[in-house]
Amino acid sequence: MAKILTSRKENYAQWYNDLVIKADLAENSAVRGCMVIKPYGYAIWEKMQSVLDSKFKETGHSNAYFPLFIPKSFLSKEAAHVEGFAKECAVVTHYRLKSSSGGKGIEVDETAKLEEELIIRPTSETIIWNTYKNWIQSYRDLPLLINQWANVVRWEMRTRLFLRTAEFLWQEGHTAHATKEEAIEETIKMLNVYSEFAKNWMAIPVISGTKTENERFAGAVETYSIEAMMQDGKALQSGTSHFLGQNFAKAFDVTFLNKTGKLEHVWASSWGVSTRLMGALVMAHSDDRGLVLPPKLAPIQVVIVPIYKKSEELENINREVEVIRQKLVASGITVKYDNRDTHKPGWKFADYELKGVPLRLAVGPRDIENKSVEVARRDTLEKKSYPLEGIEETVKSLLTEIQENIFNKALEFRTQNTHTTDSYEEFKEIIENKGGFINAHWDGTRETEEKINQETKATIRCIPLNNKQEPGKCIVTGKPSSQRVLFAKAY
Amino acid sequence: MAKILTSRKENYAQWYNDLVIKADLAENSAVRGCMVIKPYGYAIWEKMQSVLDSKFKETGHSNAYFPLFIPKSFLSKEAAHVEGFAKECAVVTHYRLKSSSGGKGIEVDETAKLEEELIIRPTSETIIWNTYKNWIQSYRDLPLLINQWANVVRWEMRTRLFLRTAEFLWQEGHTAHATKEEAIEETIKMLNVYSEFAKNWMAIPVISGTKTENERFAGAVETYSIEAMMQDGKALQSGTSHFLGQNFAKAFDVTFLNKTGKLEHVWASSWGVSTRLMGALVMAHSDDRGLVLPPKLAPIQVVIVPIYKKSEELENINREVEVIRQKLVASGITVKYDNRDTHKPGWKFADYELKGVPLRLAVGPRDIENKSVEVARRDTLEKKSYPLEGIEETVKSLLTEIQENIFNKALEFRTQNTHTTDSYEEFKEIIENKGGFINAHWDGTRETEEKINQETKATIRCIPLNNKQEPGKCIVTGKPSSQRVLFAKAY
Repeated sequence: MAKILTSRKENYAQWYNDLVIKADLAENSAVRGCMVIKPYGYAIWEKMQSVLDSKFKETGHSNAYFPLFIPKSFLSKEAAHVEGFAKECAVVTHYRLKSSSGGKGIEVDETAKLEEELIIRPTSETIIWNTYKNWIQSYRDLPLLINQWANVVRWEMRTRLFLRTAEFLWQEGHTAHATKEEAIEETIKMLNVYSEFAKNWMAIPVISGTKTENERFAGAVETYSIEAMMQDGKALQSGTSHFLGQNFAKAFDVTFLNKTGKLEHVWASSWGVSTRLMGALVMAHSDDRGLVLPPKLAPIQVVIVPIYKKSEELENINREVEVIRQKLVASGITVKYDNRDTHKPGWKFADYELKGVPLRLAVGPRDIENKSVEVARRDTLEKKSYPLEGIEETVKSLLTEIQENIFNKALEFRTQNTHTTDSYEEFKEIIENKGGFINAHWDGTRETEEKINQETKATIRCIPLNNKQEPGKCIVTGKPSSQRVLFAKAY
Repeated sequence: MAKILTSRKENYAQWYNDLVIKADLAENSAVRGCMVIKPYGYAIWEKMQSVLDSKFKETGHSNAYFPLFIPKSFLSKEAAHVEGFAKECAVVTHYRLKSSSGGKGIEVDETAKLEEELIIRPTSETIIWNTYKNWIQSYRDLPLLINQWANVVRWEMRTRLFLRTAEFLWQEGHTAHATKEEAIEETIKMLNVYSEFAKNWMAIPVISGTKTENERFAGAVETYSIEAMMQDGKALQSGTSHFLGQNFAKAFDVTFLNKTGKLEHVWASSWGVSTRLMGALVMAHSDDRGLVLPPKLAPIQVVIVPIYKKSEELENINREVEVIRQKLVASGITVKYDNRDTHKPGWKFADYELKGVPLRLAVGPRDIENKSVEVARRDTLEKKSYPLEGIEETVKSLLTEIQENIFNKALEFRTQNTHTTDSYEEFKEIIENKGGFINAHWDGTRETEEKINQETKATIRCIPLNNKQEPGKCIVTGKPSSQRVLFAKAY
């Protein structure tokens, strides 16, 4: 087999890029920093959306849609928010084009200049809280539990498919509550929805925790995140949930009459995951042959390939496979039968490995004779013959096994690559040579965090929830610390 | 009951606007021309999306995602397209903001000017065909059947919620084919998907036909549309499907090697429906009390309201309703039980009428005694008592009846308001005083069409498919005509 991908060892970044493109997930577009999500990649994203959407609805949220545009002045209303988001933005200044004076091509019509520039939403807190002002009068209007599926734009200078793109797709939940406690409860509830999704669907173990002040969402009182480890030992922040306090309610003057008839500012949360999850999915499990997809998110769970020489054999196989296919479909399994005569079985095997299809069934004349079928697992690359009788049960339990196996593999990898140290020298050595996560003591100051970042490129990923309290000394300053925090280099 | 809405008779446009806002479907946002789609409105749109999406997939299409931005130069590549779309567009000229020199607020950073301006997509033919260039080499890569769910922006000067907004949500299908015949077949297939959806789900009869040259999509060889009649007799174009010929393939140089090894340009179609369908749904069926929703698209199909005086009664009713609710849910019916004690039954009745919930069940102590339940239909406003035994079957068949009834009502209304005339005087009189659709002879020229439009505000909505061929004379010029075409004032 010709080598399709750069190996992970050779060049991890190149491997990732090759894989995203060759597996038909996405590609760069003609617009700088914006990607095209191809049908195969979009099918995975749709599966993610569908699972997350039903989890949001189960927890009482409704979807709605707010404008793409944010008036420039809105961004300035929340002091911290403007610092974080009003920098690299796409700015709409005009609303009309005209034929160029030369007659060829078109140009911006300077007479059609907007009075106030519009920003393409980098996130929607401002436009949404400006809207909530009219929706909330009394405690009876609360809680307001709304989610939006949308595209957003952040003008990133260095972009990478799925991981960091100028335009990306995401969901953003924006909730309003009568009390601080309820808003915090919501913030953590949605963080848990994300971590359960990562674990049970993406087969990725994640560490949930709070961000340091440095890494907090611009405008939040507290930011929570889930952090996953990629196969190069780097961390990938896979979802965030923010307790916004009353910051946006105050900025947009959103108040409600509480049960005792007193006017109060509303409490808020916001939370989101994006197409970045696609990057996490690819990097957590895949290998040098291609994607390894968790069965629960694979657009095709089982591919069946006929093995034959003569066309009469194919007819026989077609008949037999149709029986298998129907059994699998009836068991809720997504199956593709690829009997194209334009490609050889070997080519097909390699292609479905590249695409990460969890199970491959090969059916030839001898299998039919023996009433059996050859099953190949994508995760372990094992091949084994199984009886045709009860094949749907076999496939079902193999899919469950694969889902568990790739989770366990990722968990074991993380365990093996998580270190604990009390020495800054060792810390630097680990980050430099081994990579992975490091649990270490930190004095809680922004200065120390920045120094570590400058010297090692590692950042504090989070302060894990329910973290063990353990007195110690900051690895840099030696000042007292009450718990270890999680360091890593990150995407 | 206090009157919530302006009546249709009084002011149809005001009635529509009142209804969209009071029924919590949508509202105007702080951004000129852009709407906020509220949770109840969005829930209806989600139902539409889900049905349409599965119909697209059943017909072999996959979803994908292309950039929000289109480089300005792309718009100029197809000569007719640029005429139609490069006018009222949102133009991104800068990619950064900075703190204002005065220190307060933010301003556009003039040093961050884009080399080439980006247009927010008004439709995506250009960026998609520029991408397809790399995806298509051989006849084996065809057909390419792709759909995108996205937001688009057209800078309309006069906007109305759902009907015409600067930003709207839609789907756009973009397909590539090896032959002209196949591309035309696809164009008509998707038109039929739309008309079946309008008929069977929205309960709106539509007329399918081709557009005149005047009304053709900019860049299409032929535009097909479905046209629905609203209750004021005006037409609403509810979906379009375009045969694009080789226009975009030529503009973006997309060629393929055919089976005989010859290089040819690809043939194309594109087709779309948008949140405008929400406007059609509202205007086709609703009345002066509020929305009338077809059961198949209603977010809540059945609401149950308890009628009681004492709280012990409510406990009893709660128990009884839980049994009913479970039976209905088990039959696949969406039910809401509203036992809030903050609102009286009369208020709830009016509110669910406003929201268009197809069936309302009222349960009081006497109903429990009689083992019956009072059922009110939203479409006819009829109330009738039905036995509790088998209530799920009763409700199911009533929902089917309502779906049929509102379709038949709309069809009858259209029949009654469709006229045939051979006199331009009568034509003018009908348009002026009665409104509705008019079948009339036309000489086939752009000039006559424009004259009629200027003098009566009516346009040719379409030349119906499978139109009866019937020689006659143009109502304006008296020149020969081979068939009647469909005229109306339109949204």
